[in-house]
Amino acid sequence: MAQGINRQITLASFPQGEPAPANFAFVESAIPEPGAGQVLLRNKYLSLDPYMRGRMSTARSYAKGFEIGQVLGGGTVSEVAASNNPNFVPGDLVLAAGGWQDYALSNGEGLIRIDATLAPVTTALGVLGMPGMTAYTGLLNIGNPKPGETVVVAAAAGPVGATVGQIAKLKGCRTVGIAAGNKLDYITSEFGFDAALDRRSPDLKDELREACPLGIDIYFENVGGVVWEAVLPLLNDFARIPVCGLIAHYNDTQLPPGPDRMSLLMRMVLTRRMRIQGFIVFDFDAQRGDFLRDVGAWFREGKIKYREHIVDGLEKAPDAFVKLLRGDNFGKMIIKIAD
Amino acid sequence: MAQGINRQITLASFPQGEPAPANFAFVESAIPEPGAGQVLLRNKYLSLDPYMRGRMSTARSYAKGFEIGQVLGGGTVSEVAASNNPNFVPGDLVLAAGGWQDYALSNGEGLIRIDATLAPVTTALGVLGMPGMTAYTGLLNIGNPKPGETVVVAAAAGPVGATVGQIAKLKGCRTVGIAAGNKLDYITSEFGFDAALDRRSPDLKDELREACPLGIDIYFENVGGVVWEAVLPLLNDFARIPVCGLIAHYNDTQLPPGPDRMSLLMRMVLTRRMRIQGFIVFDFDAQRGDFLRDVGAWFREGKIKYREHIVDGLEKAPDAFVKLLRGDNFGKMIIKIAD
Repeated sequence: MAQGINRQITLASFPQGEPAPANFAFVESAIPEPGAGQVLLRNKYLSLDPYMRGRMSTARSYAKGFEIGQVLGGGTVSEVAASNNPNFVPGDLVLAAGGWQDYALSNGEGLIRIDATLAPVTTALGVLGMPGMTAYTGLLNIGNPKPGETVVVAAAAGPVGATVGQIAKLKGCRTVGIAAGNKLDYITSEFGFDAALDRRSPDLKDELREACPLGIDIYFENVGGVVWEAVLPLLNDFARIPVCGLIAHYNDTQLPPGPDRMSLLMRMVLTRRMRIQGFIVFDFDAQRGDFLRDVGAWFREGKIKYREHIVDGLEKAPDAFVKLLRGDNFGKMIIKIAD
Repeated sequence: MAQGINRQITLASFPQGEPAPANFAFVESAIPEPGAGQVLLRNKYLSLDPYMRGRMSTARSYAKGFEIGQVLGGGTVSEVAASNNPNFVPGDLVLAAGGWQDYALSNGEGLIRIDATLAPVTTALGVLGMPGMTAYTGLLNIGNPKPGETVVVAAAAGPVGATVGQIAKLKGCRTVGIAAGNKLDYITSEFGFDAALDRRSPDLKDELREACPLGIDIYFENVGGVVWEAVLPLLNDFARIPVCGLIAHYNDTQLPPGPDRMSLLMRMVLTRRMRIQGFIVFDFDAQRGDFLRDVGAWFREGKIKYREHIVDGLEKAPDAFVKLLRGDNFGKMIIKIAD
């Protein structure tokens, strides 16, 4: 923990392609004083998520982009260190948007209290937080899984994909997970996927065809790229494709060469009556209660498992973020900032 | 009308690109005798529809393809000429799948009685039939129009597009139709579109941007090609795109050159949380009663108008079909086979 100093990581420049060290700046400032109604938060855990890459850009997206010189934003598990807000006292644990830094100020709005006796506090950043709710709302609202259907999940070892697969299984579906080769045993044994395939396999198309003898009814898209290429020919009539992320493309600096398959995709949408729909978790905010009730219960009953990849030290966040974009993490990527 | 002869048009070969005369064969056979339980139908009007091009192919699609040597299928307004079926008597007018021929046999299944006193009988092939129901179900189920939203309709002078525009208007939307230049005045004055744009204009992109100052909330896709290209950058967050047809691509023999924009489209789906969904009217068969109630009422109240393009003579069907695919028709394309 910093001694009177607030370590901060800011955006130094917009990455071109994969983020590089020069895109981040390390800054030290004084720990701020909470004003009237404010609380001072000491960040303990910082969530790193693929969506952040989209915000490191001036391109139009669902969230306002980060600005140069701004402290990078991100979800945190934080402890109230000082409070001028009647709703919080020092020692309270909260889910906050504390960002890539040791300390943050908040007026209390949007802070969600965390009960450390119910579950490990880091789950508030993963299976019981934004990634878990992303999985739950995207799968149920857009995927609409029915018993006996085949659900293919990209990035199946990640916090969203792993939760999608486990909820789909609870709904009676056959689940096929695609992930990096070293995670395959784990996602079948721990997350209960019926089959697991290596996204780097040169035979992914054939392997996916074999793993989906009845075709694919739901494809939960986190990735794009070669995984989407393998999925596309196997999609059944009335297939649903919740588009949650496209991590294979976040570092793209130009479009791939032709032919142009956009019209091919539209023809498949037509002839197979597919539904392709993008979403972000905020779109389903009204379902937070449902999510906490259902996934909370499954979690307590041991029906939903999770895995975390915790990196110790705020200074390691840029490097960990690059690893996350490469898929080199194994579980929910979290930076431990302080005890 | 044929004298004891049943003129038939069969598929001689699969078209490559735009259908050519050699793809069709003219055949004469004896008028068939109805067997037990059957009726003999004398076809009066034949509907020509873009979807037929998709069936003149061995490619996977929603409908089984036509086979070489088979009489081409199609919806007809037909008169019962002879009946061994207790539910029908000679003189009954029915909506049938009579095909590209003078006479057809039916066991009575699927025949829908037409009341010629309610509306011109040809409307059973257009605004009050399959195209009208396509417009109604696609717009309401997938488009989900809300007052004040901007709806762009491709092929806006056709029977589906014209009906989409008029229903969207009744739902309180701003409607922009795209059609061939000679139809623009008509679709604003008769079908009530707020704006009409020429699909062949070299400045379509700019014109569409001007016509949609608040962006596009619903794009009813019948066309693809340059119309889709113009629409794409203007789509708002949460835009809905019912994909009903892609007539610009039905004669495609190869994919266009690169770059490959498939991943670009998927990124737009994600960042704008768009919903792209293909459908065919049969998917919403359960809503036939709703359609007939709502559109029937609007039709009788003069709130929904229609236009037909009737070509006299079965022998002209292949040529008329090519014109339809080119968009050279002006209204619902119908072949008059007999009085």
